[in-house]
Amino acid sequence: MQCFLPSVPMDGLPAMQRPAEPESTPQRPAYSAWLRDSNSITQQFMAIGGRPDIVSLAGGLPAAEFYPTAAIEAASKRALDRWGSAALEYGPIEGFPALREHIAARISKATGRTFTVANVLLTVGAMQGLDLLGKVLVDPGDLIVTQNPTYVGALDAWRPRRPRYVALDWSLREPDFGRALADAKFVYTVPNYSNPTGALVSTAARQALLERVVRAGTWLVEDDPYLPLQYDGDAGPSILALHGRMAPEGTYAGPVVYLGTLSKSIVPGLRVGWAIADPGMIQTLTLAKQSSDLTGSMLTQAIALELLEHGIEEQHVPGMVERYRVRRDALCAAASRQLGDWYEWEVPPGGMFVWMRARDPRIDTNDLYAFALEEKVAFVPSSVFDADGARRDAMRINFTRSRPEVIEEGIRRLARATERYLASL
Amino acid sequence: MQCFLPSVPMDGLPAMQRPAEPESTPQRPAYSAWLRDSNSITQQFMAIGGRPDIVSLAGGLPAAEFYPTAAIEAASKRALDRWGSAALEYGPIEGFPALREHIAARISKATGRTFTVANVLLTVGAMQGLDLLGKVLVDPGDLIVTQNPTYVGALDAWRPRRPRYVALDWSLREPDFGRALADAKFVYTVPNYSNPTGALVSTAARQALLERVVRAGTWLVEDDPYLPLQYDGDAGPSILALHGRMAPEGTYAGPVVYLGTLSKSIVPGLRVGWAIADPGMIQTLTLAKQSSDLTGSMLTQAIALELLEHGIEEQHVPGMVERYRVRRDALCAAASRQLGDWYEWEVPPGGMFVWMRARDPRIDTNDLYAFALEEKVAFVPSSVFDADGARRDAMRINFTRSRPEVIEEGIRRLARATERYLASL
Repeated sequence: MQCFLPSVPMDGLPAMQRPAEPESTPQRPAYSAWLRDSNSITQQFMAIGGRPDIVSLAGGLPAAEFYPTAAIEAASKRALDRWGSAALEYGPIEGFPALREHIAARISKATGRTFTVANVLLTVGAMQGLDLLGKVLVDPGDLIVTQNPTYVGALDAWRPRRPRYVALDWSLREPDFGRALADAKFVYTVPNYSNPTGALVSTAARQALLERVVRAGTWLVEDDPYLPLQYDGDAGPSILALHGRMAPEGTYAGPVVYLGTLSKSIVPGLRVGWAIADPGMIQTLTLAKQSSDLTGSMLTQAIALELLEHGIEEQHVPGMVERYRVRRDALCAAASRQLGDWYEWEVPPGGMFVWMRARDPRIDTNDLYAFALEEKVAFVPSSVFDADGARRDAMRINFTRSRPEVIEEGIRRLARATERYLASL
Repeated sequence: MQCFLPSVPMDGLPAMQRPAEPESTPQRPAYSAWLRDSNSITQQFMAIGGRPDIVSLAGGLPAAEFYPTAAIEAASKRALDRWGSAALEYGPIEGFPALREHIAARISKATGRTFTVANVLLTVGAMQGLDLLGKVLVDPGDLIVTQNPTYVGALDAWRPRRPRYVALDWSLREPDFGRALADAKFVYTVPNYSNPTGALVSTAARQALLERVVRAGTWLVEDDPYLPLQYDGDAGPSILALHGRMAPEGTYAGPVVYLGTLSKSIVPGLRVGWAIADPGMIQTLTLAKQSSDLTGSMLTQAIALELLEHGIEEQHVPGMVERYRVRRDALCAAASRQLGDWYEWEVPPGGMFVWMRARDPRIDTNDLYAFALEEKVAFVPSSVFDADGARRDAMRINFTRSRPEVIEEGIRRLARATERYLASL
């Protein structure tokens, strides 16, 4: 893997580059080898998001103006009144006990199969779950089967462990795919409203993959941050629920490792997520978490519990989803008017992103990116969602972060950038 | 490295053991190789701490009854009133900007040398700083020079990176030490009231080591969690401050990476710590943090800022230190009465621990540990503070967590355990 994006110098923006080797005198020891293949894409997109002159359709951020700040303030008070110093401790590494129990009950209800606290590890968002899975399963050269294009944060998380990748073949027809499954440490997928494509995987495809995974004897990591953001119909059963039907009895010990988070349904700043898995895997992830950050914040976990027990999701999510749907529709309508000649896309039934693919084979979205920044609009080029950076024909557009009129202005700028880019070829 | 402690089966306690390989049918992929050399010591000690029948002198925990819960509740409200949704975002990976500035000013004041936000990364406690340093500097087989005995959490943090260790020679006289410094990725030390020994390193020894490190061109990691816990006199200048005097001008770009935390001065549950370093190192650690947990909690960082700006440390720390001193003295007095024939120790001038060394060469504290648990008292045997587990003659005793009368009961139990253990030999 390499640094795929061009470095576009802009005032006040960190350059998109590999970390520099120390330049001090005398020379300092070299950084670990994985950093030579790393990049600061996510940092740059976060910095772009803070620039008022740029319309950023790049990030994967919720809309801050919808955050339930008053409810969180009330929950903070209740949490400290209720738990006192217990909410301020190092706490069990596995997480705040009462929240762990709540999450076990939540997953049991969602799947129709009993999960216990032994199946639950609380994590710092779902992102830490990805990091810990790499830490406990991957040695250099180990194989991961991942959907392609795939979440850039997952590629980031696993880069220090130096894996190899094979693309997940949802058709299950490629002749070498069975061999890949048998060799892989795990399969990774975001079946609900995927990042970056927004696609929803059908129940039949989930079931077929699950059966192959069970036969191959590997793990299946189901990353499900976008579940609450459903605009058109229901997401259908999770892969975890499907496996629960295949193995309904006893403590869950199946191959599915399910990652959830409150970052999309409530706020990211609590940094509360969870991993659901076989108890032995939970113990092993816990050992890895101990050596990463000792424990998560009992305080934010206790606040999360208050929010969930008081029904924050029932109160908060429907209105937020309604407004996100308006933004999605505004994006797709503006794109139909102004970008339809150059790109094609599906209207995503949930999630945060529209995945636009170039109709014109001359379009390389890495090159387009520089024109877009000149026009003060940002997107994420397809190359970053690809373990080998080869895919250059598409881009990810976010619609949750910005108001409809800002999205429309962003699409106008993207149309100008595309026009200028094509004229330059 | 191996699992050094005997597995002592006790009802309701997790066994101290290596993680089991998955036992499912069919066989699942193997865990990463480093886990075969890992252990669940910290998890077991946390579990022991939750057992009311056991006097735990094992953990490294502050006293929960002193936590400033009301101040934290008020700070939570102020933080959300002041910052609103900005305290609930993914936030910059480097940390909540206003707290980063506050920490830069704090370190500048403490050292008498200017540090800027470019020198500051906010971390999840100091523990995440250790993890990130291993991630960015260590490849398998790389050398770390570390004080011996050393903090078990640092050994845990670096185990997944598979380093080699050489003991830090504070005398600087060992003939091979210069070669080790030149080869090492970094030197690690806790110079203030070390974990596990409670020792305070003299200013002269710090300065001498620093000069050797500068000549060798390696990094020096100064881990300083216990700084606020001073019982007898002042800790003297940090190694960071000493290097600041050697390089007083411009942006700090020296070899010292300094780790601080609020876990010991306020509460652990905020999970707020910081790394101070050369800006290039901060950028690289930030990249590593992005791939670990995306960002820390802006909420707990904003709460920490409110607490610091309102002078929580000035209000809270002196009284806490006074009470910890009483506990230290109670421990040392009880030990003098009941353990003096079997062990020797220095009264620590700060920190959380007394390091007891056996006078009788027959005493192996790993073996003693089983007798201690039977007597319902826990300590940490010296073997866990040693990269190769060889040291069996000492134990770490905590005095901050328990009330004086509980500490005294713990010492009585430890005396009985020692007596029974020696009689069994």
